[in-house]
Amino acid sequence: MAVNVVESKEWYLAGYAAEGVPTTDHLTLRSVPLSLSLDSIPDAYVAVQLLFISVDPYLRTRMSGQEDGLYFPQFSLNQVITAFGVGRVMRSKDEKYSEGDIVLNAFFPVAEYCVVPSSVLIRKIDPEAGIPLPEYLSCLGVPGFAAWVGIEVLGEAKPGSNAFISAAAGGVGMVAGQLAKLKGCRVIGSTGSDAKVRLVKEEFGYDDAFNYNKEVDFDATLSKYFPNGIDIYLENVGGKMLEAVLNHVNPHARIPVCGMISQYNQIWTEREGVRNLLNIVGKEVRMEGFLVGSYLDRFADFTVEMEGYLKQGKISSKIKIYEGIQNFAESLGSLFSSSNFGKVVIEVNKPR
Amino acid sequence: MAVNVVESKEWYLAGYAAEGVPTTDHLTLRSVPLSLSLDSIPDAYVAVQLLFISVDPYLRTRMSGQEDGLYFPQFSLNQVITAFGVGRVMRSKDEKYSEGDIVLNAFFPVAEYCVVPSSVLIRKIDPEAGIPLPEYLSCLGVPGFAAWVGIEVLGEAKPGSNAFISAAAGGVGMVAGQLAKLKGCRVIGSTGSDAKVRLVKEEFGYDDAFNYNKEVDFDATLSKYFPNGIDIYLENVGGKMLEAVLNHVNPHARIPVCGMISQYNQIWTEREGVRNLLNIVGKEVRMEGFLVGSYLDRFADFTVEMEGYLKQGKISSKIKIYEGIQNFAESLGSLFSSSNFGKVVIEVNKPR
Ligand SMILES: NC(=O)c1ccc[n+]([C@@H]2O[C@H](COP(=O)([O-])OP(=O)(O)OC[C@H]3O[C@@H](n4cnc5c(N)ncnc54)[C@H](OP(=O)(O)O)[C@@H]3O)[C@@H](O)[C@H]2O)c1
Ligand SMILES: NC(=O)c1ccc[n+]([C@@H]2O[C@H](COP(=O)([O-])OP(=O)(O)OC[C@H]3O[C@@H](n4cnc5c(N)ncnc54)[C@H](OP(=O)(O)O)[C@@H]3O)[C@@H](O)[C@H]2O)c1
Repeated sequence: MAVNVVESKEWYLAGYAAEGVPTTDHLTLRSVPLSLSLDSIPDAYVAVQLLFISVDPYLRTRMSGQEDGLYFPQFSLNQVITAFGVGRVMRSKDEKYSEGDIVLNAFFPVAEYCVVPSSVLIRKIDPEAGIPLPEYLSCLGVPGFAAWVGIEVLGEAKPGSNAFISAAAGGVGMVAGQLAKLKGCRVIGSTGSDAKVRLVKEEFGYDDAFNYNKEVDFDATLSKYFPNGIDIYLENVGGKMLEAVLNHVNPHARIPVCGMISQYNQIWTEREGVRNLLNIVGKEVRMEGFLVGSYLDRFADFTVEMEGYLKQGKISSKIKIYEGIQNFAESLGSLFSSSNFGKVVIEVNKPR
Repeated sequence: MAVNVVESKEWYLAGYAAEGVPTTDHLTLRSVPLSLSLDSIPDAYVAVQLLFISVDPYLRTRMSGQEDGLYFPQFSLNQVITAFGVGRVMRSKDEKYSEGDIVLNAFFPVAEYCVVPSSVLIRKIDPEAGIPLPEYLSCLGVPGFAAWVGIEVLGEAKPGSNAFISAAAGGVGMVAGQLAKLKGCRVIGSTGSDAKVRLVKEEFGYDDAFNYNKEVDFDATLSKYFPNGIDIYLENVGGKMLEAVLNHVNPHARIPVCGMISQYNQIWTEREGVRNLLNIVGKEVRMEGFLVGSYLDRFADFTVEMEGYLKQGKISSKIKIYEGIQNFAESLGSLFSSSNFGKVVIEVNKPR
């Protein structure tokens, strides 16, 4: 017989973290009873068991309680926070969804179970497609799409371009480097540990990579790795690395600006100022920010291309899975300590 | 009988000015004898009497003796400096040019007379076209073209766009504001004195303008002038103004980066760091540097359009003319003291 009330663990925001990495002082786990009985579910709603939750840098910017530069709304105090995720429909009051459907949502509660309007579901996933479910949050999801927009659309990657990718070992970086290689670029990455440098070179096929925590002078580092200058810089980190890059750009370089994670833990007036923006004029650089949500008209093209690469083994994927929702705060913290490898995901419940 | 030797006054670089506005310690006038006799002129050279010299901000960056971000080669010590100018051919050893031709060159010596290879001449000007010669250095020259590239090509000015133009009363700014108005934008300018605020509003048709020297908090100023945010920012000044603008940009704003004159008198490590570049991501801003030299394939389109506007009186032009080459250092200094109005030009010799 089907369960009608569950205890659902969920993460809520106990306080804003203006600066620094949010801790369990700011993010707190609680357990709430949730009725899953059909008559308690409103029309056009579904009850969902969460399977996988995507742990993404932008979540941190929704916990600062102030204008941040990414402009996602701040999470409300004492409310459950939300994230991209994959879940399984348990009960449905919408004829388009049935029990057992695997569904994707950009704003699932970070919880074990939830009842949500069916209108928020992005789509159903076909489990017979042979793609592991977490991949829909990785290469086939937001990070993979961000990498594609950055490298193929805005970066205009061409054979022989010199491409530099920061946060190279993360969800976006791992895909971006491989896409740039497939387009014939020479690709160099930066990341935060020697183990991740090895990962990037050995598993993701980067031509070379360096550990920025060991480099004292980024300018000298880039001179060494880019004797012929930089044509494309996929910007994931901001601050001093961007400043160094701007001293090494070639004429007409492209800088797709995907994120600036090194600046997410400070209020904006405390962030690192970039002093050499004048190089943008002399080198005629195009620096362009983007949010994947603005490129949804290209998502189908992307999906076809990326599924092809995955099936042909042309893109390799690494996913770091934390088991159990209790690990959310720790997994979010891992994004800021270089302890994550590849795409970070939480397995909330085992898929059957 | 034609003169065969002239005394030509010329400005040479006596020393680099790493910081601050170059003075006569760095820029020095001297008089040199120059032979204009036909047999002293090499084949494919012409002797030219300079008529007008364009006084431009980038000239300052060629006098710093260090990497500057605009990447024009540094002037050599003790050599005559060069500038955009209009001259009259006095003697010619190239059959394409005859005595009396009015010619344009991007790199004329800043001198009263010169002998140059005819290959450096950009083109002949038809004095019968009815356009005053200095206009070829202003609305129809580099500043006008820069304004056109910034507003029409990269800025994608559309009816209803909110456009902000810094250095609004200068050579680029006066044209840019009028072009943006012609495209149907709401146009606000910033400039350095109350008299220039009046000029911008009364002669160049800006909807409004402010004196940045009187504003203590650019952020508050922009809130006041842009209640609906900024769609296009033609960047001429850089530093704190750019930072303030980035707090007021609308989604998908364009920032054509024409120059950053507030930063030309410092070495790059001393320049004002911009701390809120993360807004480029959240607002999906496109910030693009340009040099007019890269858009020469569009110069003919521009010329047709601009000549039309000038003839129809749709664009009004203001040119500040300094009489005599001895005023070069002072006129260059005027670009940094808000004492210039419109495009600054030196009349070296009276056209006949
Ligand atoms: N625009 C969009 O639509 C969009 C979509 C997805 C992601 N993004 C952005 O893309 C970037 C990467 O996201 P992701 O999901 O792929 O995350 P991720 O790379 O998997 O994780 C974040 C990584 O950032 C690096 N990092 C953390 N603090 C840093 C610092 N102070 N300096 C330099 N690197 C630091 C860490 O790697 P190291 O070990 O290398 O330090 C960490 O692994 C982020 O800026 C994110 O906001 C944007
Ligand atoms: N990219 C290209 O191909 C190209 C071509 C031409 C020009 N440019 C650039 O376009 C800009 C305007 O050039 P222009 O020829 O039209 O010169 P301009 O505006 O006629 O003269 C420069 C003006 O800059 C302003 N200024 C000086 N110091 C400043 C400061 N610290 N803060 C704010 N404003 C300051 C002054 O006006 P205020 O009284 O308003 O302070 C001055 O009148 C410059 O940055 C120049 O380098 C670029």
